[in-house]
Amino acid sequence: MPQKIVIIGANAAGIEAASSARKKDRTAEITLITKEKTAGYSRCGLPFVISGAISHFKALTVYPLAYFQMLKLNLRTQTTAIAINIKEKTITVQTLERIIEIIPYDKLVIATGADSFMPPIKGREKHGVLNLRSLDDGEKIDAAIKAGAKSAIIMGAGLIGLELGVALNEKGLQVTIVEMQPQILPQLLDADMAKLVQTHLEQRDIKCLLGNAVEEILGEEKVSSIKAGGENFMADLYINAFGVRANTQLAVDAGIPIGETRAIKTNAYMETAIADVYAVGDCAETTHFITHKPICPQLGTVAVRQGKTAGTNIGGVNSQFTGVLASTVTKLFDIEAGSTGISETVAVKNQIGIVVSTVNSKTKAGYYPSAKPLRIKLVVKKETEHLIGAQIVGGEEVTQRINALSFAIQKQMTVRDLAKADTAYAPPMCETWEPMVLAAEMALMKLR
Amino acid sequence: MPQKIVIIGANAAGIEAASSARKKDRTAEITLITKEKTAGYSRCGLPFVISGAISHFKALTVYPLAYFQMLKLNLRTQTTAIAINIKEKTITVQTLERIIEIIPYDKLVIATGADSFMPPIKGREKHGVLNLRSLDDGEKIDAAIKAGAKSAIIMGAGLIGLELGVALNEKGLQVTIVEMQPQILPQLLDADMAKLVQTHLEQRDIKCLLGNAVEEILGEEKVSSIKAGGENFMADLYINAFGVRANTQLAVDAGIPIGETRAIKTNAYMETAIADVYAVGDCAETTHFITHKPICPQLGTVAVRQGKTAGTNIGGVNSQFTGVLASTVTKLFDIEAGSTGISETVAVKNQIGIVVSTVNSKTKAGYYPSAKPLRIKLVVKKETEHLIGAQIVGGEEVTQRINALSFAIQKQMTVRDLAKADTAYAPPMCETWEPMVLAAEMALMKLR
Repeated sequence: MPQKIVIIGANAAGIEAASSARKKDRTAEITLITKEKTAGYSRCGLPFVISGAISHFKALTVYPLAYFQMLKLNLRTQTTAIAINIKEKTITVQTLERIIEIIPYDKLVIATGADSFMPPIKGREKHGVLNLRSLDDGEKIDAAIKAGAKSAIIMGAGLIGLELGVALNEKGLQVTIVEMQPQILPQLLDADMAKLVQTHLEQRDIKCLLGNAVEEILGEEKVSSIKAGGENFMADLYINAFGVRANTQLAVDAGIPIGETRAIKTNAYMETAIADVYAVGDCAETTHFITHKPICPQLGTVAVRQGKTAGTNIGGVNSQFTGVLASTVTKLFDIEAGSTGISETVAVKNQIGIVVSTVNSKTKAGYYPSAKPLRIKLVVKKETEHLIGAQIVGGEEVTQRINALSFAIQKQMTVRDLAKADTAYAPPMCETWEPMVLAAEMALMKLR
Repeated sequence: MPQKIVIIGANAAGIEAASSARKKDRTAEITLITKEKTAGYSRCGLPFVISGAISHFKALTVYPLAYFQMLKLNLRTQTTAIAINIKEKTITVQTLERIIEIIPYDKLVIATGADSFMPPIKGREKHGVLNLRSLDDGEKIDAAIKAGAKSAIIMGAGLIGLELGVALNEKGLQVTIVEMQPQILPQLLDADMAKLVQTHLEQRDIKCLLGNAVEEILGEEKVSSIKAGGENFMADLYINAFGVRANTQLAVDAGIPIGETRAIKTNAYMETAIADVYAVGDCAETTHFITHKPICPQLGTVAVRQGKTAGTNIGGVNSQFTGVLASTVTKLFDIEAGSTGISETVAVKNQIGIVVSTVNSKTKAGYYPSAKPLRIKLVVKKETEHLIGAQIVGGEEVTQRINALSFAIQKQMTVRDLAKADTAYAPPMCETWEPMVLAAEMALMKLR
């Protein structure tokens, strides 16, 4: 009898789980359940439709219906999973027509993702208070711009907040970003590196109000201003980019254990504590490669890797998820910023003895026109000289350097190794001495 | 007594040796000898001055005279080393005024580089027959263009030949490149990857005549045409980019052993077989990281790494050169091409059992406008699943991927590791599934 695989969620993690299971098991009955109208679209692309870089929201559909048909995946959109019964091995769903159905499973994958978390701010029910998580959210922001919004306050200076801030700025809106932490991108960068990015944003007329929370959203029915740090800021839109929270209600109700990050606990096989139930993507807690502590990084790349691991195991081939370095990158106007492994801040918090080195360099040979600045920071474990984290801010060529340093961390490269690395060079693309190598050399000097 | 360090050669390798020695030994007397008028310039930048991307040759001077003064390096330009006496530990030099001097050394570094090799083609003494190795060579080509040259034949489709071909094409010359091998970039790429680059060059009107040698250079005093493959090609310039040969005459005359690559034999400390004599850069033979065979890669990055190793050892701190992966990259019009480790061709020649995987992808998310094509080829050792080579051709973001794969090879990453790598992603810069990871996955499937 073919096994019945049910996946709750039909975006990055869920679809990857379905696809990977299908590759190993040609006969399984695979069903994907999603409450959304559209499955398989890229959330990460939303800010770029709003900015106009991508022409329309439909372009974000990475997996067309033909994909599901080709792989014989039974996709059920606008269908809400309302309960999991781990004893009977069934899930209960409700269709758009409010019909209740019981669906049995042999293997269940929870890929319920995360939702925007809106702190309980006074006035948050007003018109003009928006999120950016789903296609629907994106379309609402787009509509507000088309309706003539001239200014926006964004709460949260994480990736989504900043990428959306840039998009709104490019659309001509006056943008102020309010962040409770004393720096932008607190998950991604240390304060010294974040400051470079902040300066770039401010040069482009994005205001950053740090170390402050939004206290109240003012206006009649519609947002007219917000109060933050004791001041009033006029704004047509208030956008909540405070962060997302793993969608765990279904799991909690079913008795599936939740971890300390408030996401669903998993092991290296992406199994939850309950037999035959997996969790992947933004709702799943996993382990950090360096700290070995629980983490729920809520990144697309981690989601697909977890989905693949779960799907491969369900398909009958043993596969382990190797942990999270949380390699991340973003582009904001003319600057790219990225990181991998742990920051200085996280190292200190975890009482890991470190040495830090930072170099300023250029993205091309010094004498080559249009070379852009590049700053690299390495975090090195003092005890072993291993590279354990890296941050880069620069005008170009940041992403693949982050990948290079991620590989280095994964393979336990010491800065002694890195200082001797064999790198490629050509004047239009880099310096003779690769800045990553120079940063390793500088770390070595500090270690002596 | 301070030690006397003498370095023959004052470009990448020589200056790096001098600088590294100085860092470890504050009192040494360090002398650099060069027959050239200018020291410390970037040869790799020459094609970009000819193309006009860089405004003048002077911009290529990476180390101004102030640098030598600051580090107290005694720089002697237009001074030719004519003999080494390894018993007396002296070298003999001749100044521009033809004065002969004997200079004693405690440690000697031979960084004599390489010169263009001109095969014995009939007619090679004619006006309009040029090389591209030194600043002088660059200025001659520049002058020929300014004098109205309309067409050029370049012998050799290596890095210099192609980069110069692009430069001349951008200056409006009709360019034909003749190459004896049946493909372009034979040192860098396998034929399948090289073909992509060739097509790009041909679309820009550079002719490639492969599998043919130049048989004769025709014309009265001046080049008017060349004969190749039985045909006659009209040309105002004939440029020899056949390759370079290590300058070893001084070493040979002094009885310093030469290796099978016809460069000076060295060990991991960059010592020659003679006590207190080192060789670095384009004149030095070293060991390949994968094949463990002698190699003389004649790359700027290798030169500086070797110079640093020799200088550090001379300065009294033990340092080993870890071998060559020959990571290389070039930009030709709108395409970047690079490689690291060994090619399929070299693996087969060395009877290494391999699996090869190739993926086509894009440089941005598929839905993001202006994504450019990217092709990655991995060479994997069958016995151990280790990555041992990689080649990439793409519209952008090639260089740092080559570095990433170089780190992977250095740290003995298997494709099983690489298929699980934690990579960074953002729609304007890359795909969710990094193409390097997909290529590893494909290699894994072939290994099963």
